[in-house]
Amino acid sequence: MANPSPGNSITLRVEAPSSFSATSELAAAVGAAGAAITALDVSESHHETLVVDVTCNTTDDEHAARVKDALNALDGVTVQHVSDRTFLMHLGGKLEVVPKVALRNRDDLSRAYTPGVARVCLAIAEDPAAARNLTVKRNTIAVLTDGSAVLGLGNIGPAAALPVMEGKAALFKQFANVDAWPVCLDTQDTEEIIMIAKAMAPVYGGINLEDIAAPRCFEIENRLREELDIPVFHDDQHGTAIVTLAALVNALRVVGKKLSDVKIVVSGVGAAGSAIIQLLKAQGAEHIVAAGRSGAIHAGETYSDEHRSWIAANTNEEGFSGTLHEALVGADVFIGVSAPHVIGEEQVASMAKDAIVFAMANPTPEIDPVIAAKHAAVVATGRSDFPNQINNVLAFPGFFRGLLDAGASDITPEMLVAAAEAIANRVADDELNASYIIPSVFDPHVAADVASAVAAAAHAANVATAAASEQPEPEAALANA
Amino acid sequence: MANPSPGNSITLRVEAPSSFSATSELAAAVGAAGAAITALDVSESHHETLVVDVTCNTTDDEHAARVKDALNALDGVTVQHVSDRTFLMHLGGKLEVVPKVALRNRDDLSRAYTPGVARVCLAIAEDPAAARNLTVKRNTIAVLTDGSAVLGLGNIGPAAALPVMEGKAALFKQFANVDAWPVCLDTQDTEEIIMIAKAMAPVYGGINLEDIAAPRCFEIENRLREELDIPVFHDDQHGTAIVTLAALVNALRVVGKKLSDVKIVVSGVGAAGSAIIQLLKAQGAEHIVAAGRSGAIHAGETYSDEHRSWIAANTNEEGFSGTLHEALVGADVFIGVSAPHVIGEEQVASMAKDAIVFAMANPTPEIDPVIAAKHAAVVATGRSDFPNQINNVLAFPGFFRGLLDAGASDITPEMLVAAAEAIANRVADDELNASYIIPSVFDPHVAADVASAVAAAAHAANVATAAASEQPEPEAALANA
Repeated sequence: MANPSPGNSITLRVEAPSSFSATSELAAAVGAAGAAITALDVSESHHETLVVDVTCNTTDDEHAARVKDALNALDGVTVQHVSDRTFLMHLGGKLEVVPKVALRNRDDLSRAYTPGVARVCLAIAEDPAAARNLTVKRNTIAVLTDGSAVLGLGNIGPAAALPVMEGKAALFKQFANVDAWPVCLDTQDTEEIIMIAKAMAPVYGGINLEDIAAPRCFEIENRLREELDIPVFHDDQHGTAIVTLAALVNALRVVGKKLSDVKIVVSGVGAAGSAIIQLLKAQGAEHIVAAGRSGAIHAGETYSDEHRSWIAANTNEEGFSGTLHEALVGADVFIGVSAPHVIGEEQVASMAKDAIVFAMANPTPEIDPVIAAKHAAVVATGRSDFPNQINNVLAFPGFFRGLLDAGASDITPEMLVAAAEAIANRVADDELNASYIIPSVFDPHVAADVASAVAAAAHAANVATAAASEQPEPEAALANA
Repeated sequence: MANPSPGNSITLRVEAPSSFSATSELAAAVGAAGAAITALDVSESHHETLVVDVTCNTTDDEHAARVKDALNALDGVTVQHVSDRTFLMHLGGKLEVVPKVALRNRDDLSRAYTPGVARVCLAIAEDPAAARNLTVKRNTIAVLTDGSAVLGLGNIGPAAALPVMEGKAALFKQFANVDAWPVCLDTQDTEEIIMIAKAMAPVYGGINLEDIAAPRCFEIENRLREELDIPVFHDDQHGTAIVTLAALVNALRVVGKKLSDVKIVVSGVGAAGSAIIQLLKAQGAEHIVAAGRSGAIHAGETYSDEHRSWIAANTNEEGFSGTLHEALVGADVFIGVSAPHVIGEEQVASMAKDAIVFAMANPTPEIDPVIAAKHAAVVATGRSDFPNQINNVLAFPGFFRGLLDAGASDITPEMLVAAAEAIANRVADDELNASYIIPSVFDPHVAADVASAVAAAAHAANVATAAASEQPEPEAALANA
């Protein structure tokens, strides 16, 4: 399933003989090597030679090398160098910290820094709640990781995780004007991570936990929620659960089934799987079977960890104890947050009529979606090159926008449900079909819809500290003059 | 010495009767109340009334209240509200986190985030040094405090310290294009602070310690320098020492004396005093006496803390054991980093001919500079409303710019001296006089001069990891194609 991807885009600087057909020959050679050409720029032209920048999408580094060889094999053509556009984009990092206030002259300095700033400091020392108005805390969250479960790459550590956290921070700003800062910790000790998160909290209005391995992530999130007065959200759990619920709500509209009636099989009982199960239950799902590597989780067995014990006690009311494949027989919904190719065509065929398959393992799904679609009515994945991409970016920017707008001190299940409904409702009745159950990540209205739903839910749950629809008010900062 | 300051600038919205002289009457009343008017804008004009925004500098909140009362006392005039421009400037904080890369479409997303980012992560996992090229680490430092010694305000805690750290970060960006992020820690435990700084280091190319109380600051800086491979700099110590040395070098040029000859008395043996003494010695000063609250530090006494023991062993070669006032008799240089009004006119008069007085306590100096100037040849303070402002902002932005440019792993005394010389050299021979021994903080060349001096010193000291004059090179990030 590897298609040439813009994530593997390269630019080859090529010297070629000057001729009418030079560029078209280059393009043909790139195409024959299986790459998708996206740009072709003549950067220098001489009497005898041209210098051409050939930009194309490849599948991976090895493929890029083959493209280079194919061009070098052309008569009179030399590849001078190859640059990797993904690496170029990362040079020097993807974020910068920019003053929101001008510092042109002494007067500006006197207000933004000494001596004027001292009065602002004293105002916060007297009333700590003022920090939400008078500092970056109002609009800033931490994107915190220990680098232990980064994308599909595993435990690559905090430095190697930083490009992901920077990218995530860029998405927060781009999609919801949330200022997000990467915190990559060089420790994987649960207690140390908790202590550090608590110590650094004064600067932040919320914490997004990211790519922290299970089961450590559960303990960290639970403890921080208890011990901090700002909201803490593990995106790998709740972000995934929100978009999954949104997609499922709409998929059920397509097939005309009810959440409380359907039999749902969840493959994967890690961070994402647990959170999905919790949220589906909160929304009224009654027939869920979860399966890990050793088969269905059921009450007849004892589990050493808290979250699988919870799953055993709260799902699988019939006490089914077979394999994932056995569980799927007659099931209405498959939700995969596990590993590549754990099910095959046969299993999808064994499901109930009008089955729904969400194969979300990344980058390689639990089943090839093209094959799944032979038998299922609705198929979704985590990939952008198939219909129905279930992508957390639909949830997390707007979710934190809503938290910050409300000055939320905590997160409730109702807020997660509200976010899922807001996403699902972005697909209008006349747009809804089996290939469009979830809006595009570039839908410009998703984040704002999610934000207002979350802020409203925060107010309803009494975890909001800001007045409803509060705007920064100059009067709030008046001198007592 | 309290003059109306732009740090205490207010805008009064005033309703006044429509008349030809209305605005001039308002201006006169503000002036009579002792405030300095800076703007007068008619925001609404009606048949009978005007609404006027009167902006003026005041000395403090009480003065602002008197200005309001003075306007209300005018016939037919009502102050509708008063806004404080310093607080207005702080609403929502002074920093934002902005993506450096566009995220307009799916292709952009594929490079800046998944799936493309995974290759960048793996490149760093394989070669951790690549993080300096491929992440924000290249250009980013932490501004770290525990809120224990903020400005002259003392131990106001991490939340109340945040406006200062934001301001400092804004200065870093404005003056030297360094991305700086505030880290305000809710702990004042030395070991916890050290542990946290080490854990968060993967994101940063340097750490600026700020407003941490002595003696904790010494231990934290020393330990972090030993245990981290990025430079750690306590600005209250070394930033102050650099600008003090720069000013002293030029003051000595004015009076025609040599550093190795002069007798220097330092008042204050906290963080700044210790660092100043170390740097003066590194640069060749031979006759220094330091005085704390209980008089001169001398080898005849035993001190419980390491830094005063060091001062006793390395200064005051004559073993002088009297008071600060006694020490000043016949001294050439007074350097005050202590407290308001610790010396008087008499003490300055008792100094040697062509005395130099640096009274840097903030906001109120060790002696009124106008009085000191009656007897001293050169007088400097930390204030902006007198000549010769000795301000750290001349040092820290360029210093960290140089550290980041060199990819420095450590800081050496030679780098501090190089920075001081670069600042001193910004004052040309034909500019130098007793009222101009140090460049303006808005001199556009200071930061760049300091940066190149520091980077060169880092290379000379073999603590640079970047090639000399390294630029981000696309080739450095080529695929192995």
